[in-house]
Amino acid sequence: MADLDMVNRDPNNINDFIGVQFEDVLAEPEGAHSIDCVWKASFFCFNIWKNFFYKLATLCCGMCIAAEWGCEFARIAFTHIWFVTPFFKVLEINCGCLQKFWALCVHCCCDPCCEAFGLIFGAFRKD
Amino acid sequence: MADLDMVNRDPNNINDFIGVQFEDVLAEPEGAHSIDCVWKASFFCFNIWKNFFYKLATLCCGMCIAAEWGCEFARIAFTHIWFVTPFFKVLEINCGCLQKFWALCVHCCCDPCCEAFGLIFGAFRKD
Amino acid sequence: MADLDMVNRDPNNINDFIGVQFEDVLAEPEGAHSIDCVWKASFFCFNIWKNFFYKLATLCCGMCIAAEWGCEFARIAFTHIWFVTPFFKVLEINCGCLQKFWALCVHCCCDPCCEAFGLIFGAFRKD
Repeated sequence: MADLDMVNRDPNNINDFIGVQFEDVLAEPEGAHSIDCVWKASFFCFNIWKNFFYKLATLCCGMCIAAEWGCEFARIAFTHIWFVTPFFKVLEINCGCLQKFWALCVHCCCDPCCEAFGLIFGAFRKD
Repeated sequence: MADLDMVNRDPNNINDFIGVQFEDVLAEPEGAHSIDCVWKASFFCFNIWKNFFYKLATLCCGMCIAAEWGCEFARIAFTHIWFVTPFFKVLEINCGCLQKFWALCVHCCCDPCCEAFGLIFGAFRKD
Repeated sequence: MADLDMVNRDPNNINDFIGVQFEDVLAEPEGAHSIDCVWKASFFCFNIWKNFFYKLATLCCGMCIAAEWGCEFARIAFTHIWFVTPFFKVLEINCGCLQKFWALCVHCCCDPCCEAFGLIFGAFRKD
């Protein structure tokens, strides 16, 4: 089991689009500045309540949800590795055959016509 | 029989799209970090349940499924090697003939016309 | 009769698309590894059953099928070499005549028109 990085918890950046930091949500442009202490207090309120509820929710349900996803992904991995991929291999072999057959037919019918019609543009040929 | 690589079990990367590691599924971006022990416990829950179910499923069915696919691919290999490929060779020879005949007809009929119409673009000819 | 290469049995790579090795069919990506002995046993089951059925089928039918294809290709070669190709030569000569006649007619009728229409693009002519 690989080590768990406790600092960077999103090494593959799959949840990067979720910006829930204070500066992602609230921002005052030039010309609309509240009183300094209000802005500071807002910052603390935002962070305290966000962290409190997020940590509470994950404390209550985090492990169960993670376990559930573990089971689900075990099922998915099993299905895909042992059934879907080999089945695709079979399909690939058969499709390769079908494509070969279809290519033979198409080349047989269309190649002569296209060569003949190509003569129309013979003037553009670079000798 | 070739050796079996027990570490890298997907040498041809055919199942690379199945990412079922913890960091592929669950990730906390900056600003939404749960309590350290909750995150650690989630990691262990996820991995334990995933490994348990996957290993259980493969223990029960893995060998049977592998044997079944072995038979199936023996059948496919036999059919393709001894029937389909030689049949395609026959088809290829006959198609070659047919195409030659068809090309003769098409060139006989269309070449003079296309050459004549090609005169329209005679101005573009590089002499 | 040329020597038979017992190791590389597909020197022209005509059946390369049929990948029926264990690693072409079954593969476990990172994070979904079954127990070592299960993976090993699956490998042996797959190979044993695949080899058993393929070798059995070729043992029973291989020689007969090869003999049959031998006769078939002898027939095809005989027909094409002694009838089809000379017949095509005849056809080619006759078609050449016909095309020449047809070209005379077409050029007689269409060339003046096409040359006239070609003047439309006269501005592109490089003198």
